[in-house]
Amino acid sequence: MKTIYFVTGNVGKMQEVKKLCEGAGIHIQQVEYPYPELQCDDMEEIARHGAQDAANHLGKRIIVEDAGLFISALNGFPGPYSSYVFKTLGNEGILKLMAGIKNRKACFKSVVGYCEPNGEAVTFSGAVDGEIAREIKGEHGFGYDPIFIHDGKTFGELTTEEKNKVSHRYGALKKFIEWFNTCDKKIFN
Amino acid sequence: MKTIYFVTGNVGKMQEVKKLCEGAGIHIQQVEYPYPELQCDDMEEIARHGAQDAANHLGKRIIVEDAGLFISALNGFPGPYSSYVFKTLGNEGILKLMAGIKNRKACFKSVVGYCEPNGEAVTFSGAVDGEIAREIKGEHGFGYDPIFIHDGKTFGELTTEEKNKVSHRYGALKKFIEWFNTCDKKIFN
Repeated sequence: MKTIYFVTGNVGKMQEVKKLCEGAGIHIQQVEYPYPELQCDDMEEIARHGAQDAANHLGKRIIVEDAGLFISALNGFPGPYSSYVFKTLGNEGILKLMAGIKNRKACFKSVVGYCEPNGEAVTFSGAVDGEIAREIKGEHGFGYDPIFIHDGKTFGELTTEEKNKVSHRYGALKKFIEWFNTCDKKIFN
Repeated sequence: MKTIYFVTGNVGKMQEVKKLCEGAGIHIQQVEYPYPELQCDDMEEIARHGAQDAANHLGKRIIVEDAGLFISALNGFPGPYSSYVFKTLGNEGILKLMAGIKNRKACFKSVVGYCEPNGEAVTFSGAVDGEIAREIKGEHGFGYDPIFIHDGKTFGELTTEEKNKVSHRYGALKKFIEWFNTCDKKIFN
């Protein structure tokens, strides 16, 4: 089984990515590395830059994953800054901002960046549409999961297995896995 | 008069910086250049990286300025992401988040980064304490000025001259100007 190093400090993300990749024959090992994230609205660019930097510094095959919640009525906020906003405002802050707003439409986006040492980074993206809940609901997942409703339930009400069937992260990783397993056979075997 | 290029797309900032610097014998010329901003909580690092990148790419003496509004009750939000948050939520969004919150304490921070081509960037910082208003007030300034109260008035109620006597940007630029005018004599004359 090939090993890829996943740069993250987020245990919930690690759990999801590990389950998805190992089911496809890719071994995932967590590594913490404070790669410089670009401050820009382009999540592909953030992931590309991060994967390249980490692969070159650590000398390993690297994936990074960047996710964002884009809320229509808030002009896409918190978008690429979802992680910072979660740390400072949390789900309570988002619900406060959304108080009295009828249009609850939102979208979760995920971008996976992959790079080998001295290689060129490639990215894969996934997205899932949903709505912002009116209250926090569910004990599973992490981050904005308990306020993101998809198909009648919040992501916080889904087990990892259930979330992994529909999530934005699944969408991005599925593309990555297909690409990696195809390339891998061609290049390395 | 020595010319320094100020990388910004913000007309209000340009106006403030120009007045402060030209009063001290430094000619400021605006230049637009989309330098990569790091996504991190360290404003000094963002300014250092930005000034260095712009100086090397443009081959000119460069200053950049990064400012942020740090609200105590919101764990420092919007902080280094003030510009993005202003574009998406605006002052109305901040007031909504602050509804019902007694602790209105806030701080405006500014960091100026300076760099010459192939030189090493230096940074200078300034800060001013204040409070978040309960309503938008004032027609001057830009960004969060109309909701930031200092000494009984919002920054939006001050003219550029008045704001330039007390602002965070003034604090940072004053340090830069002193340093530049001293160094300049030593190195260039």
